[in-house]
Amino acid sequence: MTDILRLKMLIAYDGRPFRGWQSQATKDAVQDHMEAAFAKTIGGRVVVHGSGRTDAGVHALAQIAHADVPAARLEVSAWRGALNNFLPPEIRVLRVSRAAPDFHARFHARGKIYTYRMWNASYLHPLEIGRAWHMPSKLDLDILRQGAQMLEGKHDFAGFAANRAPGYAAEDTVRTIQHICLTRRGDLLNLRFEGNGFLYKMVRLLTGTLVRCAQGRAELTFIKELLAGKGAKKTSFAAPAEGLYLTRVLY
Amino acid sequence: MTDILRLKMLIAYDGRPFRGWQSQATKDAVQDHMEAAFAKTIGGRVVVHGSGRTDAGVHALAQIAHADVPAARLEVSAWRGALNNFLPPEIRVLRVSRAAPDFHARFHARGKIYTYRMWNASYLHPLEIGRAWHMPSKLDLDILRQGAQMLEGKHDFAGFAANRAPGYAAEDTVRTIQHICLTRRGDLLNLRFEGNGFLYKMVRLLTGTLVRCAQGRAELTFIKELLAGKGAKKTSFAAPAEGLYLTRVLY
Repeated sequence: MTDILRLKMLIAYDGRPFRGWQSQATKDAVQDHMEAAFAKTIGGRVVVHGSGRTDAGVHALAQIAHADVPAARLEVSAWRGALNNFLPPEIRVLRVSRAAPDFHARFHARGKIYTYRMWNASYLHPLEIGRAWHMPSKLDLDILRQGAQMLEGKHDFAGFAANRAPGYAAEDTVRTIQHICLTRRGDLLNLRFEGNGFLYKMVRLLTGTLVRCAQGRAELTFIKELLAGKGAKKTSFAAPAEGLYLTRVLY
Repeated sequence: MTDILRLKMLIAYDGRPFRGWQSQATKDAVQDHMEAAFAKTIGGRVVVHGSGRTDAGVHALAQIAHADVPAARLEVSAWRGALNNFLPPEIRVLRVSRAAPDFHARFHARGKIYTYRMWNASYLHPLEIGRAWHMPSKLDLDILRQGAQMLEGKHDFAGFAANRAPGYAAEDTVRTIQHICLTRRGDLLNLRFEGNGFLYKMVRLLTGTLVRCAQGRAELTFIKELLAGKGAKKTSFAAPAEGLYLTRVLY
């Protein structure tokens, strides 16, 4: 019987060249590139389990994934170099360690931190192209903070979830957001979301809706209604993918 | 007689798509794009004078330039929007102001600050591609600091200048570097050069040579010899363009 080694990986990627994390028929997702790098390293199929999906264009500073490999093939310390050797430069495995045999990148995650970057000035700085949402209009940061405070805590966030393609099982849409933290440094606005989990497109819908209020184009009562409606009412204001970063997975 | 207005511009660019600042026959330099934007705005030729050249691939956080335009054509406050409207997104005019009629972006510059970024880890972070020099080898930062100290002050830097194409007039190669400041934040190493002027490729040659010493592949005496040789001996260790940023022009 082959001894199996479970690897835990810390992965960073620039989201722009890829169709999100989750494997695609077109094989241009981050997971596809990861699995191809494993296949090239050991010549057999390896399934890579991420902590969760990121959409097309969304960046990751610290995605976590696990995969099982035959223990005899490579030292744990050799995997990082082997995988990076076959990965495109826009995906880098920053760390590889031995995980417990029952460690699961998705099921064991007890929370996540996402960061959303906005460039709040008339013109987008050229070094922020593809890395921040360009927001030329004036924002009322007090409103933004008040809205963020309303979203903190345990709520049914169905009003802040995009519908999945048919075929997905109905999902429990109750989540807890521990903190939403707003910081400003010059023209750069940063929204940091820490929660026990996020629904499909939820961070982008939260950000887009908060910004809508901070622009004065929606009232804060809109957020109250979305939370109370439990999905009866949905927001359609999604911030674009390029400003979003998966910043940390909590175990 | 047409009244002339001299504009002073603060410009940022991502250096990657362009063949440097200085106008090229191929019209793909930053200056060419600036002049094309002026031509599209007022329908006539305008010469844009930068504070100095940046090489192909070098970024600018704060390039300064001036240009003369007919005063009656546009309000000063309207120029920023007009130019950005015709510029590629990788070049942005951040500020436009009225300059004194005798202000000269190049001749009046009394100094410049350049920043050189290095990513000092086994693998280049995917979000640093094209924005930092990937330096996987271990660096002795004490050596780097000692070398930097030797370079500070007034010296003949001919040993740290690339030869220009034939036809360039022989240039005075004495410059003063006020400070070289090294900072480290995680895997990111930053070298900040403040000086009264820099020769062709000088910052890249200074950085490359300092790094060569910090890698243990050259002795610090090499730097001493280059300074004493006044061009009799030249260094060929140039750091790549992608890590270099024109950070400020001092007037």
